[in-house]
Amino acid sequence: MYDNFVVEGDKIATEIIFDSDLEIESIFALKSWLSFHISSLEKYQELIQVVNEKELSRISGLKTPNQVLVVCKKPVYSLDFNSINNNLTLFLDNIQNPGNMGSILRIADWFGIPYVFCSENSVELYNPKVIQASMGAFIRVKSLVVSFGGLREKLPDLPCLCTVLNGENVYSAQVPKKGILVLGNEGAGIAPEILAQATHKVSIPKDKKGGAESLNVAVAAGIVCAALKCK
Amino acid sequence: MYDNFVVEGDKIATEIIFDSDLEIESIFALKSWLSFHISSLEKYQELIQVVNEKELSRISGLKTPNQVLVVCKKPVYSLDFNSINNNLTLFLDNIQNPGNMGSILRIADWFGIPYVFCSENSVELYNPKVIQASMGAFIRVKSLVVSFGGLREKLPDLPCLCTVLNGENVYSAQVPKKGILVLGNEGAGIAPEILAQATHKVSIPKDKKGGAESLNVAVAAGIVCAALKCK
Repeated sequence: MYDNFVVEGDKIATEIIFDSDLEIESIFALKSWLSFHISSLEKYQELIQVVNEKELSRISGLKTPNQVLVVCKKPVYSLDFNSINNNLTLFLDNIQNPGNMGSILRIADWFGIPYVFCSENSVELYNPKVIQASMGAFIRVKSLVVSFGGLREKLPDLPCLCTVLNGENVYSAQVPKKGILVLGNEGAGIAPEILAQATHKVSIPKDKKGGAESLNVAVAAGIVCAALKCK
Repeated sequence: MYDNFVVEGDKIATEIIFDSDLEIESIFALKSWLSFHISSLEKYQELIQVVNEKELSRISGLKTPNQVLVVCKKPVYSLDFNSINNNLTLFLDNIQNPGNMGSILRIADWFGIPYVFCSENSVELYNPKVIQASMGAFIRVKSLVVSFGGLREKLPDLPCLCTVLNGENVYSAQVPKKGILVLGNEGAGIAPEILAQATHKVSIPKDKKGGAESLNVAVAAGIVCAALKCK
């Protein structure tokens, strides 16, 4: 477990440095990038390391490094129970694909969902591929690793909607629009011990001519969030 | 351009061999896999090559090859205009990420969408990562590379829905449920020359507290298809 994580590239670095509350540890940047941003970087002067392209490519995880790499401290979020009680919250159970995790953070960001919780066995929240797929959503969405049991202990009365393959039609079912929405592992779905605590089990209706066994978990997350937020 | 493509692993190979019309060129399989399926493989006898694990890993594109690899002929689909006129059809404009392309085929398969068309500059339909992400959907969904202009020439009267960031709310807009639904490139969106032919421009409403600039294209495809098929 490291306390830091890395973001790369001009767009996200600019967003982090100038438009977020994240604590920055270091900025490694090409001279050309710095000269473009120099007027706004005064307060970060001590954190900046000028590197050349060869050095940047040595510390970068990207095939084609992009001008700047920022090392940030992982944020520690406190739980605002009032906010959680009055919003939809996502709980990701054992999501393994970093692209899916990032896409789901982006969905939360789009639909104004303040918190995304992840089980301990999910892919690391600050995995570079999660950061990349989230397209900056990780800056705005509060994401934390928590156990489902621990969360439930603190919020025992909150509705718990589980997305499953044989539940009620999410479009026609009478389901609350605030509460915890659980999304399960790409292959195995939601763990039985979590499913046992569902107050509602919802599904995306499949067309009668449809053949697929399931949908990608990020796609399913998007459809169910849209159904709850927009219908 | 090759005429063949490769699928790997027990689940999808079994589906292709026993449950699809795809033309099989060769089956490379471990003895253990063959002995399990021997009674059903009679008609494929001449196409089967027994390989050991080392040989399989040499021809496989996977880190951990899974028992069997099948070489298939890419199917050539004819256009059933009657079906296209009476269904929702997807047109993918310059989709680059194979995971997105596979997820969208899976969405089409779930919602009973018979045809998915792709622009010539999209990621190759039979890219192994597309095949993997589609989870077998490519067997049932007819996917073809066509130019948008060519398609429009043949179907000039069909509604053309374009998913954009500043269009009508897809939930409240009066939009037809049959027609061509266009999804655009991950970064640039839909090409201007296609957008110019839109009969409707639709968007997924963003929460007033939402921060994300956009959604992942497969997630957006899922939400819009669900809105058109289920609302």
